[in-house]
Amino acid sequence: MVTRRFDHQVEELLERMTLEEKVGQMVGTPPHEDVAEMESEIRDHHVGSVHFGGTPHNTPEAKAEVANAAQRVAVEESRLGVPVFLRAMAEHGHAAVAGSTVFPQQLGMAATRNPDLAREAASVAATEMRATGVQSTSSPIGDVARDQRWGRIAETFGESPYLSARMTAAMVEGYQGDDPSDPESVLAVTKHFPMYSEGVRGEDTAPNEVSTYTMRRVHVPPYQAGIDAGTGGVMPCYNSINGEPVHGSKRILTGLLREELGFEGFVLADYRGAEDLHRAHDTTADLEQSIWQSVSAGMDLLPSGGSTYTDAIVNLVESGELSERRVEESARRVLRAKFELGLFDDPYVDVDEATRTLGSDDHREIARRVARETMTLLKNDDDVLPLSPDLGEVLVTGPNADDIAHQHGGWGNVRDPDPMGDTVLDGIEAAVGDDTTVTHEPGSGINEAGDVDAAADAAADADAAVVVLGEPDYVHEFSRSTLGDTADEFPKRTQLTLPDAQLDLAKAVHETGTPTVVVFVTGRVLATPWVAEHVPGVLMAYQPGSEGGAVADVLFGAYNPHGKLPISVPRSEGQVPVRFNYLPHPRHHGAEESHVDSYDPLFAYGHGLSYTEFAYDDLTLSAETVGPGDTVDAEVTVTNAGERAGVETVEVFVRDVLSSRVTPVRELAGFARVELDAGETDVATVPLAVEDAGVIGDDGDRTPEAGTHRVFAGDLSAEFDVERRYS
Amino acid sequence: MVTRRFDHQVEELLERMTLEEKVGQMVGTPPHEDVAEMESEIRDHHVGSVHFGGTPHNTPEAKAEVANAAQRVAVEESRLGVPVFLRAMAEHGHAAVAGSTVFPQQLGMAATRNPDLAREAASVAATEMRATGVQSTSSPIGDVARDQRWGRIAETFGESPYLSARMTAAMVEGYQGDDPSDPESVLAVTKHFPMYSEGVRGEDTAPNEVSTYTMRRVHVPPYQAGIDAGTGGVMPCYNSINGEPVHGSKRILTGLLREELGFEGFVLADYRGAEDLHRAHDTTADLEQSIWQSVSAGMDLLPSGGSTYTDAIVNLVESGELSERRVEESARRVLRAKFELGLFDDPYVDVDEATRTLGSDDHREIARRVARETMTLLKNDDDVLPLSPDLGEVLVTGPNADDIAHQHGGWGNVRDPDPMGDTVLDGIEAAVGDDTTVTHEPGSGINEAGDVDAAADAAADADAAVVVLGEPDYVHEFSRSTLGDTADEFPKRTQLTLPDAQLDLAKAVHETGTPTVVVFVTGRVLATPWVAEHVPGVLMAYQPGSEGGAVADVLFGAYNPHGKLPISVPRSEGQVPVRFNYLPHPRHHGAEESHVDSYDPLFAYGHGLSYTEFAYDDLTLSAETVGPGDTVDAEVTVTNAGERAGVETVEVFVRDVLSSRVTPVRELAGFARVELDAGETDVATVPLAVEDAGVIGDDGDRTPEAGTHRVFAGDLSAEFDVERRYS
Repeated sequence: MVTRRFDHQVEELLERMTLEEKVGQMVGTPPHEDVAEMESEIRDHHVGSVHFGGTPHNTPEAKAEVANAAQRVAVEESRLGVPVFLRAMAEHGHAAVAGSTVFPQQLGMAATRNPDLAREAASVAATEMRATGVQSTSSPIGDVARDQRWGRIAETFGESPYLSARMTAAMVEGYQGDDPSDPESVLAVTKHFPMYSEGVRGEDTAPNEVSTYTMRRVHVPPYQAGIDAGTGGVMPCYNSINGEPVHGSKRILTGLLREELGFEGFVLADYRGAEDLHRAHDTTADLEQSIWQSVSAGMDLLPSGGSTYTDAIVNLVESGELSERRVEESARRVLRAKFELGLFDDPYVDVDEATRTLGSDDHREIARRVARETMTLLKNDDDVLPLSPDLGEVLVTGPNADDIAHQHGGWGNVRDPDPMGDTVLDGIEAAVGDDTTVTHEPGSGINEAGDVDAAADAAADADAAVVVLGEPDYVHEFSRSTLGDTADEFPKRTQLTLPDAQLDLAKAVHETGTPTVVVFVTGRVLATPWVAEHVPGVLMAYQPGSEGGAVADVLFGAYNPHGKLPISVPRSEGQVPVRFNYLPHPRHHGAEESHVDSYDPLFAYGHGLSYTEFAYDDLTLSAETVGPGDTVDAEVTVTNAGERAGVETVEVFVRDVLSSRVTPVRELAGFARVELDAGETDVATVPLAVEDAGVIGDDGDRTPEAGTHRVFAGDLSAEFDVERRYS
Repeated sequence: MVTRRFDHQVEELLERMTLEEKVGQMVGTPPHEDVAEMESEIRDHHVGSVHFGGTPHNTPEAKAEVANAAQRVAVEESRLGVPVFLRAMAEHGHAAVAGSTVFPQQLGMAATRNPDLAREAASVAATEMRATGVQSTSSPIGDVARDQRWGRIAETFGESPYLSARMTAAMVEGYQGDDPSDPESVLAVTKHFPMYSEGVRGEDTAPNEVSTYTMRRVHVPPYQAGIDAGTGGVMPCYNSINGEPVHGSKRILTGLLREELGFEGFVLADYRGAEDLHRAHDTTADLEQSIWQSVSAGMDLLPSGGSTYTDAIVNLVESGELSERRVEESARRVLRAKFELGLFDDPYVDVDEATRTLGSDDHREIARRVARETMTLLKNDDDVLPLSPDLGEVLVTGPNADDIAHQHGGWGNVRDPDPMGDTVLDGIEAAVGDDTTVTHEPGSGINEAGDVDAAADAAADADAAVVVLGEPDYVHEFSRSTLGDTADEFPKRTQLTLPDAQLDLAKAVHETGTPTVVVFVTGRVLATPWVAEHVPGVLMAYQPGSEGGAVADVLFGAYNPHGKLPISVPRSEGQVPVRFNYLPHPRHHGAEESHVDSYDPLFAYGHGLSYTEFAYDDLTLSAETVGPGDTVDAEVTVTNAGERAGVETVEVFVRDVLSSRVTPVRELAGFARVELDAGETDVATVPLAVEDAGVIGDDGDRTPEAGTHRVFAGDLSAEFDVERRYS
């Protein structure tokens, strides 16, 4: 997305700027409760951007008004009239704003295996953001899920580097559109570079303890994809890697990010990530030293420090600790973003238009389509699903049956007392026929036992029971705006099993003998062996956002599900981490087989049922022998062997059979979607880039190696050989 | 331990050797059931060493006879009369041999915090080995415990790099003595370089997924200590690191081990570690290529391949794939070891002497002293311990109350139908007075429920109950010679809680109201919150070896315990890994404190009670300001505030407050032992090497950095400043 077309304007502007004005481009301020405070930061301290967190000003109107106020001061009351850069979190829609369309969390997005849909969702989210004057989102998240305990699993695209890369690129494209100056586009900030997700113990912000090989093999690909897709910004992770906090690591923020991966946009600090250098990592002594270390490492924009930060940076330059050249480098990147966004032409928004745009029917319909495609049917014994809309009486129970905030999950609009959207219960009530009664008994809280007997009695009377279990909304580990932050309660890092209150409810309902379906509304995947063994129907709904009606679309058969798990579901906490793409290693002592199958999850990566059945009949490759830069098409013949139309995403995995470094037993390398009527047969063509199967070297280069590569799709396999003339 | 004094003889011999003879020095053979087979390998294929596994020939007499047979063929029937090198596992005594003295596993050894005692134990073990003709042990284990799930936790010295380094060095010194030609010394082979213990998922032999910073900071120190203590050999780990299987990694076996750490001895492959290159890691295509890769990387000695291997290596040299120079390099190292061991003077042993030496009363008394010092009293509410020897009636129950094999743990003499030693029950029976009745009810198996009612009834009748719970013997993950290898049964990787059968027994006994003590005989530390909360007395006995009587010494007060946990006990599997020396990192979202306390175990590293009480009164440092090469003495005033004599090991931790890389919140840096009569006060002086508090750089160097270093002992703290003239 970085172009050269504004270079001239940027340089001309830079030349006219004082040190203080240049420094101002590197610093942001929160909007503050008192807007005058923000205005003063911009006017009196040259602060060049505003970061909207969750609050205050969380209506579309308020957001747009504050945005306009910020621009007015910047444009009309500053010496050079440089507009401000307004940013928000906005991970799954402009979700912190009341009335916005809230999309499913990324984990659900990944279950769709539909980058086109993710692109469309991101585009809608961008439209809602830009309507309120926000020009950038701290999204997408390129972090590859590695430990199922982590509090931010919901925010990832799951455990496949390839899938994460595809989805990350699609989201960047969707946010940014063809031209960021388009009033329906924002700049993406891909985060949290280069990996946030492998903190030791699954603990949030704990050191990322992996080898550089794993970093490059697993974690870097989505960032490379985001950069290749033109992401305007990149945000580093809070963690330390190899003993270096990333917010202060020149090796990572300049060496890896710019020199190796070729990123040319701006690097945006995460909240207090720079302060953490002295507050937590103890690699600096105080704020000024932290700012020095971070900026020296390559940080361009510190989002929320305001004039405290601008003063510190000016002081660092004046005392000779930091060069003015370094400040200009960052100011140049920020100014270029402002030019690209078209802010110098018109920085203002129409306040009324903002209110009309957010949560519009069109947008909600798209969000419902997205949520529908996320739905992943984990179990459907005896075709308990779909339920008939005319079944007579259905019980809806469980703590997540009627809770919009829980559906939103983290970074949602949870402070709105009456958040917009349909709960699962709303959706079911709308889905059933006129003669069907929907009974709602909460039955249980997330942790607190409820009136289980009432739920069981109602279940006994009903023709079917839908038990909606899972997690509440939370951010990080595990801060909860609706429940308070009680560390010993679920959800917590050390527990992936359901709280007793929820499990007891499921057991009581199931024991009535009434056909029972468990729906999980949850950020993380939960270790629920009892449910998996006993309950005939299990639907994973992730955190679906504002459109809980999508759950009913699937439960009552209006939509035939085809979501696939983007992450493995563990059997227990002790099994974590369990991942499909593990590295082979010697067999434990005493056994005959040489390879260990270290993968025995409760539900596997890629698992997901349909109301029809698909048969894979033939896997052929377009070439048997290829060169390192070639693409091989894997063609899989798929037949819809069931009785209704459906969608199947064929996933193709590759293994480099013999390699100079240890490579995974299988790695996702491509996927393709087929839509088939009952009885129909088609061929899914999945292009596989030979380079993607390359072995990562010390320099980060990915080199396809000569020899056999095995290709897998379902139970089928085939092989191609890489031939190299030079290696 | 490597000297130059045999260089002349070695070179003279090498010059006379054929390629086949030189290659023979690089290869070993198992002893085989049929001794003639071994003899043929030595005579006809120049195989230069024999590796004794657990079987066959597992009596002292048989071992010595086979050893003499091997030497006879080598010396009398080979062209140059080069004796063979005979090696065994022998991790905790010459334990695979019937009648040997079996010492506690290393984890228990570490609990003693007594390197002098470990040195003495190793010396006894060496005496027993050498008496049977064995000249080398695959011990000690330098691997630092990192994941409580791992199947080889018992074999480690726990989670402190410093403690592991001290104990590793002491064991090497004990095995090797002043001169390996001493008939009571063997060569140590420190393993499993450079780290085996951080396999992902806690899975045995899985890739070690850590940064090079962690590898050097945590894992390398014990190996450096073993090398500095002169370890004759080093054995690599099975795992891959950074995508490279260590058995085939020149970067690790030559770059790190020889060039960086200065090791000059021989590198011994672990069992089939070289074969794993093609059998498991898939970095080679077949056995010959694996041998090529391993030898090219720096492997000197392949222990068990016999003539298949010698033929392969000869072929590699003749075809030009491997240089004869490379073969000579390894042959030189092995020959030097044989000269150092004095084998050219007299390779034979006295068979009768072997039988007399193993398990002698003197040796068993030392083993009992060691076992006693391992005992770690985790809980002692209301002074339930010690029990009076004259209490009337005591119930002894639980699956580990009367099982020598379980006491031995892995690599013990578990194939002997009647292994020598005292069980816990034996010890208790011997410890009580004449008028006290000892009732034994097993009550439970490891996994299978037993007659709990009988145990509870007996408990109700008794004046005290001792419930001996824990794990059986096993090796790796979790191969069990006494139980069969049933992967779904405890012990297993994913479970650290007690099986229901054992927990139910503990609950039933405790509920009788009879004063109850739980003794854990276990390789790993178990997550047992119920026991920790409810049972008044809890004693950690590790796997104590042949001398289970040591448990009774503590239970009945003949010995005042002072063991300290060398590893943290987790609350649950979900909490793993939990370690005292974690790296600081940012606080999770929403909280005020900047540092996270990520350490909340069930029982902390260093925990261990006494029958008396110690008060720490004053922590003073010998210097406030030091240079990078200095030593600071921490002096802690300790008072025995209780009513009986006791032993206290003062542990001193250091934190580098501000560092260029993230350093642990605390790291053990020294310890000292004081023995105090009731009421006595003394000063424990703990020397702290400033260099040990250095920050590890990319080159592996440890550089003390200028600035404040905080020192902790108990609740006390003090500070010293490092001043640097150049940095």
